[in-house]
Amino acid sequence: MTQSREIHLVRRPVGTPVATDFDTIQIPIAPPAAGEVQVRNLWMAIDPAMRGRMSDAKSYVPPFALDAPMEGPAIGEVIASNDPAFAPGDLVFSRLGWREIFNAPASALQLRDKTALPSQAWLCFAGMPGLTAYAGLVRVATLKAGDVVFVSAASGAVGSIACQIARNMGCKVIGSAGGPDKTAFLRDILKVDAAIDYKAEPSLTKALAREVKAIGATGIDVYFDNVGGDHLQAALALANNFARFAICGMISQYNVTGAPTVPRNLTMLMTKRIRMEGYIALDHMDLETEMVEQMTAWNVAGQMASAETVYDGIDKALDAFNGLFTGANIGRTMVKLS
Amino acid sequence: MTQSREIHLVRRPVGTPVATDFDTIQIPIAPPAAGEVQVRNLWMAIDPAMRGRMSDAKSYVPPFALDAPMEGPAIGEVIASNDPAFAPGDLVFSRLGWREIFNAPASALQLRDKTALPSQAWLCFAGMPGLTAYAGLVRVATLKAGDVVFVSAASGAVGSIACQIARNMGCKVIGSAGGPDKTAFLRDILKVDAAIDYKAEPSLTKALAREVKAIGATGIDVYFDNVGGDHLQAALALANNFARFAICGMISQYNVTGAPTVPRNLTMLMTKRIRMEGYIALDHMDLETEMVEQMTAWNVAGQMASAETVYDGIDKALDAFNGLFTGANIGRTMVKLS
Repeated sequence: MTQSREIHLVRRPVGTPVATDFDTIQIPIAPPAAGEVQVRNLWMAIDPAMRGRMSDAKSYVPPFALDAPMEGPAIGEVIASNDPAFAPGDLVFSRLGWREIFNAPASALQLRDKTALPSQAWLCFAGMPGLTAYAGLVRVATLKAGDVVFVSAASGAVGSIACQIARNMGCKVIGSAGGPDKTAFLRDILKVDAAIDYKAEPSLTKALAREVKAIGATGIDVYFDNVGGDHLQAALALANNFARFAICGMISQYNVTGAPTVPRNLTMLMTKRIRMEGYIALDHMDLETEMVEQMTAWNVAGQMASAETVYDGIDKALDAFNGLFTGANIGRTMVKLS
Repeated sequence: MTQSREIHLVRRPVGTPVATDFDTIQIPIAPPAAGEVQVRNLWMAIDPAMRGRMSDAKSYVPPFALDAPMEGPAIGEVIASNDPAFAPGDLVFSRLGWREIFNAPASALQLRDKTALPSQAWLCFAGMPGLTAYAGLVRVATLKAGDVVFVSAASGAVGSIACQIARNMGCKVIGSAGGPDKTAFLRDILKVDAAIDYKAEPSLTKALAREVKAIGATGIDVYFDNVGGDHLQAALALANNFARFAICGMISQYNVTGAPTVPRNLTMLMTKRIRMEGYIALDHMDLETEMVEQMTAWNVAGQMASAETVYDGIDKALDAFNGLFTGANIGRTMVKLS
């Protein structure tokens, strides 16, 4: 019988997850029952929200069960099907990562076009990170050609796609990331117009002012916010009148207790007539088809670089996860499972 | 020859303006020259921005000249005309307040309908305060029937109109103001659904939560912000998903030095998908005709109460001005000049 490996959570981690919180289980996989499909995972994506589900604190998603495989976005290939909607060779998206081979009801799978894009792109620029960046810029921030766009956490899974969308739509892009490797990635791979190493800047506002001037602009028209805090303050300070801010994340603020120290300049919302809007990609699934078409066209034209840190094999999954928190990873964190 | 009185700024005030910073001058008014119109002011409106123009600090409007009449919105009646566009008896708006009778070029005057509304309404609900409230609610916050609307500084010139617009458009309205006289005004005259005396509440967030519950709602859909700070924090805390915030003013923040202490909960923009937009009424002059029609209809139907604190005669103008800063005035501060 077909053998698979899957990673179980066996103990709820305290602080940084360690190897003994998990177990890699080898199990036999029976042929798919009626209405089931058998899938070999090719790739899974790792994201920080998984840490929350390892704990049993109350949240809007349930915690991972103990002694069961964890979950997460994955792309796989159908290897056997007992459902008329799927056939061997089909490329499918599921939430059933952290395992190599599995049987699942057809309803847990979504077909993906295997000819248009590299398979892992469905977890990256043609997946939720792509939709998040696209909805934020195109719908929330009503991006238009000629805008000057500032992206924080620009080397991250979503930020790296946001930079490229803005560049491809005829905008000038200033990205911020931490450290020289990441700013080199912004310049060399994402081809932004200016990159700021926020860890090396005593004042992010002064750094942004300098880069705005360096690209021949007077201010920013759009801010794609993943960070909040001093990045938001700098964006407010350099905003042009009628600027639009898409608030995708405020990672600097999640663990702040007590009073935040920034932004001090929220009144600029009014004097500069800024629109600032928070959003969640799941509210914008109606844009998915348009987004995939656009991303595919850009990819074919060589204008959408994949931005991934790849770990090879299910044995490296925990390293991949912990890499999220050390700041080592650039772009989407991926595990190649097959 | 016709005699007029006008108030000159003779010295730039330090702190609270005092009587000796001003002089009331009696002058003769010649018949209007060619292209000029002679106007007797009926009403003028006083607003806090005039304090800024009494100083010579750099701003987006020039300071008042010394030894010349000050300026401000006024409504008057044409008493003689040497321009074909105006005739005696016409009602006109100008920026030439702080004087009783004056000659001005026709280009400095705008005709107003004298039959539709009481003349002072053109400085209040059918003037800039009306446009400010209307544009903020209808355009910026995309108000719709059934919304729960929170208005801060609800007894002020703009807030008092915002409360009534929202009520007339089929919304539930919660207003906040300082002191029992003002909250009584909100309830009795503006007919809001709930009124909060922010000076009497140890926690504005708790007070807003209590009033939201009292009117049978789960949260607020629209926040009309004149105050910022802890009012904005309470609005974020009680916002429903997809709430819209029109940022008209943030008066609590203008004199804050150092780091602001509120709002601590700006990340709710994202989790609740809130849209927060600053605006300035002058960008929305295209709404003026629609606004005046709507306000006139509501006024005729008895659904738009005037909210004014009236001082009688040009000799009371300085009292009117200082009343702005003691918190004594409710609604628009007006001086009846004739």
